[in-house]
Amino acid sequence: MTTPAVSRFPVPDIANLPDDIRERILAVQEKSGFIPNVFLALAYRPDEFRAFFAYHDALMEKTGPITKAEREMIVVATSSANQCLYCVVAHSAILRIRAKSPHVADQIAVNYRKADITPRQMAMLDFAMKVATRAFAVGETDIATLKEHGFTEDDAWDIAAIAAFFGLSNRLANVASIRPNEEFYAMGR
Amino acid sequence: MTTPAVSRFPVPDIANLPDDIRERILAVQEKSGFIPNVFLALAYRPDEFRAFFAYHDALMEKTGPITKAEREMIVVATSSANQCLYCVVAHSAILRIRAKSPHVADQIAVNYRKADITPRQMAMLDFAMKVATRAFAVGETDIATLKEHGFTEDDAWDIAAIAAFFGLSNRLANVASIRPNEEFYAMGR
Amino acid sequence: MTTPAVSRFPVPDIANLPDDIRERILAVQEKSGFIPNVFLALAYRPDEFRAFFAYHDALMEKTGPITKAEREMIVVATSSANQCLYCVVAHSAILRIRAKSPHVADQIAVNYRKADITPRQMAMLDFAMKVATRAFAVGETDIATLKEHGFTEDDAWDIAAIAAFFGLSNRLANVASIRPNEEFYAMGR
Amino acid sequence: MTTPAVSRFPVPDIANLPDDIRERILAVQEKSGFIPNVFLALAYRPDEFRAFFAYHDALMEKTGPITKAEREMIVVATSSANQCLYCVVAHSAILRIRAKSPHVADQIAVNYRKADITPRQMAMLDFAMKVATRAFAVGETDIATLKEHGFTEDDAWDIAAIAAFFGLSNRLANVASIRPNEEFYAMGR
Amino acid sequence: MTTPAVSRFPVPDIANLPDDIRERILAVQEKSGFIPNVFLALAYRPDEFRAFFAYHDALMEKTGPITKAEREMIVVATSSANQCLYCVVAHSAILRIRAKSPHVADQIAVNYRKADITPRQMAMLDFAMKVATRAFAVGETDIATLKEHGFTEDDAWDIAAIAAFFGLSNRLANVASIRPNEEFYAMGR
Amino acid sequence: MTTPAVSRFPVPDIANLPDDIRERILAVQEKSGFIPNVFLALAYRPDEFRAFFAYHDALMEKTGPITKAEREMIVVATSSANQCLYCVVAHSAILRIRAKSPHVADQIAVNYRKADITPRQMAMLDFAMKVATRAFAVGETDIATLKEHGFTEDDAWDIAAIAAFFGLSNRLANVASIRPNEEFYAMGR
Repeated sequence: MTTPAVSRFPVPDIANLPDDIRERILAVQEKSGFIPNVFLALAYRPDEFRAFFAYHDALMEKTGPITKAEREMIVVATSSANQCLYCVVAHSAILRIRAKSPHVADQIAVNYRKADITPRQMAMLDFAMKVATRAFAVGETDIATLKEHGFTEDDAWDIAAIAAFFGLSNRLANVASIRPNEEFYAMGR
Repeated sequence: MTTPAVSRFPVPDIANLPDDIRERILAVQEKSGFIPNVFLALAYRPDEFRAFFAYHDALMEKTGPITKAEREMIVVATSSANQCLYCVVAHSAILRIRAKSPHVADQIAVNYRKADITPRQMAMLDFAMKVATRAFAVGETDIATLKEHGFTEDDAWDIAAIAAFFGLSNRLANVASIRPNEEFYAMGR
Repeated sequence: MTTPAVSRFPVPDIANLPDDIRERILAVQEKSGFIPNVFLALAYRPDEFRAFFAYHDALMEKTGPITKAEREMIVVATSSANQCLYCVVAHSAILRIRAKSPHVADQIAVNYRKADITPRQMAMLDFAMKVATRAFAVGETDIATLKEHGFTEDDAWDIAAIAAFFGLSNRLANVASIRPNEEFYAMGR
Repeated sequence: MTTPAVSRFPVPDIANLPDDIRERILAVQEKSGFIPNVFLALAYRPDEFRAFFAYHDALMEKTGPITKAEREMIVVATSSANQCLYCVVAHSAILRIRAKSPHVADQIAVNYRKADITPRQMAMLDFAMKVATRAFAVGETDIATLKEHGFTEDDAWDIAAIAAFFGLSNRLANVASIRPNEEFYAMGR
Repeated sequence: MTTPAVSRFPVPDIANLPDDIRERILAVQEKSGFIPNVFLALAYRPDEFRAFFAYHDALMEKTGPITKAEREMIVVATSSANQCLYCVVAHSAILRIRAKSPHVADQIAVNYRKADITPRQMAMLDFAMKVATRAFAVGETDIATLKEHGFTEDDAWDIAAIAAFFGLSNRLANVASIRPNEEFYAMGR
Repeated sequence: MTTPAVSRFPVPDIANLPDDIRERILAVQEKSGFIPNVFLALAYRPDEFRAFFAYHDALMEKTGPITKAEREMIVVATSSANQCLYCVVAHSAILRIRAKSPHVADQIAVNYRKADITPRQMAMLDFAMKVATRAFAVGETDIATLKEHGFTEDDAWDIAAIAAFFGLSNRLANVASIRPNEEFYAMGR
């Protein structure tokens, strides 16, 4: 058994990164106490790094009818369907913190249908999982079901976009074998 | 949001259980500090309870070339493929303790191909997952691959039997919505 | 073409088996006129043998709202979905005898939706097949559908447990390539 | 429970059929002692009936390196994958007769990988099943594997065409719920 | 990159074909300005050629409540699900001409649920796709849904038979790697 | 039949868009002669629009060992697997132009295994399709296969990132029912 690296692709030296990327990484480190490996792995491609985190922030830092904790629920459920180790471990940590719940992330990762969530959150995850696995079959009936649970059309876009964006993230992390930082496993438990 | 019960089926009062079952349950409680819910849920059917735990012990309490920790790896990997909340949460706890590793269970639950395990353990899980999901296609080639990693035919039976037994357990726990005890989530982290 | 053995794993000599197992096997032989190969194949592991048949009897020898013939219908339908040669051939024989029908087993094995069964039996098999193939998605709606056909919650457990138990049996029999005895093919036709 | 009809679509009166179709049906009845229901069901559409049986005969009445019994093996294996009750029951009868074997049809219907067939026949069925289920992925590698077992390119066409033709037949029979004649179940056992 | 041939199997010289087949081929050439490759590829087997085109004409040259353009919609949708290059390219051309629409074929080939078709045509394609991919599960509910859209039972047969026949055609064309004629790509655009 | 809109979500008036987005859209219109609908549909969310196109350009406007035409091959193959109408139609047009080939896009969209492409391009698409459909199983063997065809590790990232990015794009376009502009269908034929 060898210790896997941060990524199976080369990881650049932080000192050599473009200023904006280095600053973003140092800011995250300052806030979290460590550098989440996805930042180092994606820094291999600065332009993709910038686009990735801009997209991420537009979807995940938003406030509105769907809370930040609920956004993380979508990430954990769909990333588990895509079997993405980095995303499930890292975002389970964030979900535990944002939901102030030590258990809901593990529940959603294994089988969201059995998780301690509200019927509205269940409908949100049903929709997110359909986007993640069979988006070609999503239609007006699915949006109507969301509306029955109080979601707006704007919320539908948010749910779909988060599921779609992490579909991208999950595929990259699986191909690059991005390793979750050890810090994530116990955060928020 | 309501707190789910131990099981969606009736849970008998321990005082009214047959002696052997009550004693087994109290022994587990003494050892663990709590009663794992699967004991209470299956006590609904005493004869099935006895057969279930006899089978379980024959496969999981055994020592040999496949360690107890490795047996739990099989449980976690296949139970995750079957999306069984109780089994993944409970056996991840046992795996963390038996492997003296706080992270390997979460890794195996999400994507065993990316876990920090040996090539021999990877071959073991490849075989277990084929038994869990496509046993009809298992053949001599699969056994030969196990042998290349040092497993015997007897080990092949063990791996297959554990995957098959937890296939039973996973289905029961999903139908009964057996709820993992809260104690399991943090054990061994 | 070579004649396959009883099992791809070693089959113990009956004379050397523990008394209780030898007696059970001889009793079956006395009753049936031959020893069904699953008894010989599983005798390779005495403790597992005992647990397996105790579980089997608890589920299959029971009487109640679900008849013994109907229990065999569940076995044939789910074992066919799992492509288990031994289980389909052996339990088709038992189903023919218990249902006093020469054709229903073959119908259920190929496509239970086209079998000559009652709507109540069809609902029973729909549920059993969902347990066999997608137990993670079983929920209260499925139980409610069973109730519409007159099944109780207790019956739901029975159906699920039979489907789950034979999921175990099917996987073992496929890995061990347990060969159906020739006697089974024509029984009850 | 009601007795299903020959077909869920109207079945014409033999007396009113075009002469060639009536004669073909009467010839089959003379030879077999009964009229296989597929003849009555397809007579609903005389032009399709003629094309169907012309195609059938071109593929199934042919002699050559692939025997008539082997052709029926292809039908039974692929029709089982397509869950076609009529085709599996009727062609299992024909296979039993042509192979002079009471058991091989049931074995192939449940799991051809476990059947008492030669490695050459196994390769034939592997190819046929790929054509039945994932023809889009068939390529030169598959043909090369057939050749290693002594098949010619001409044989490859035969195997593929039989699998493809019964893919048509299976779909029609499932949509029309064509019922197997009772005579088929016991023939050749 | 080499130019693929008409078919991976031998293509006979037209001059040596049986008269009826040569005449059919020359008639098509006269009408279309070229010989569609499926005619050349299938001429390798004259009896199968005759049955194939007799079947084709019975289903596709028919007039009735389902127009010829709608019949081609079924071909394009199901052939795309089966990933058949020849059938999608050739029948998209025919669909463009028969529907007098340059776009609907491409829409149906990619995702018929998003195509500019009527709700009645959507129901027709939903049924056809179920026949193509899961005919074993087709039942009276599916026929009832068709009737809600104005289809008769006779129409249901037509839709099913077209989906089933092209399931045959798609499998043959994929195994033989039948190459679409270049003329088809731009026809009707 | 009603004419579908650009998107099922609101489409903003170009005049009211932020300057940078309006300018990008007008620049595309100037170059192409029309505004591809994906620009209008995504303008509903300016921040996501900016991140999306920055990501797109980083991957698709790049030159290197993988040509721009080859990048479009990846988009067409994976978008077809995801059944994304907008992406297949729009990027087939771009592929026809970049590859100077009127046929290769249709071939790849239906079944890339049958397309007129080089073995190196086939290996590229095999890898891209695995990323699109089963990224969790991508491993070092897949990268090694790419290298046998002359690809570098850097190329592997490119292929994976394009497949992953369009997995995002395909899901958004399917949920929003983004309609391909009519201009795309005939471009480059």
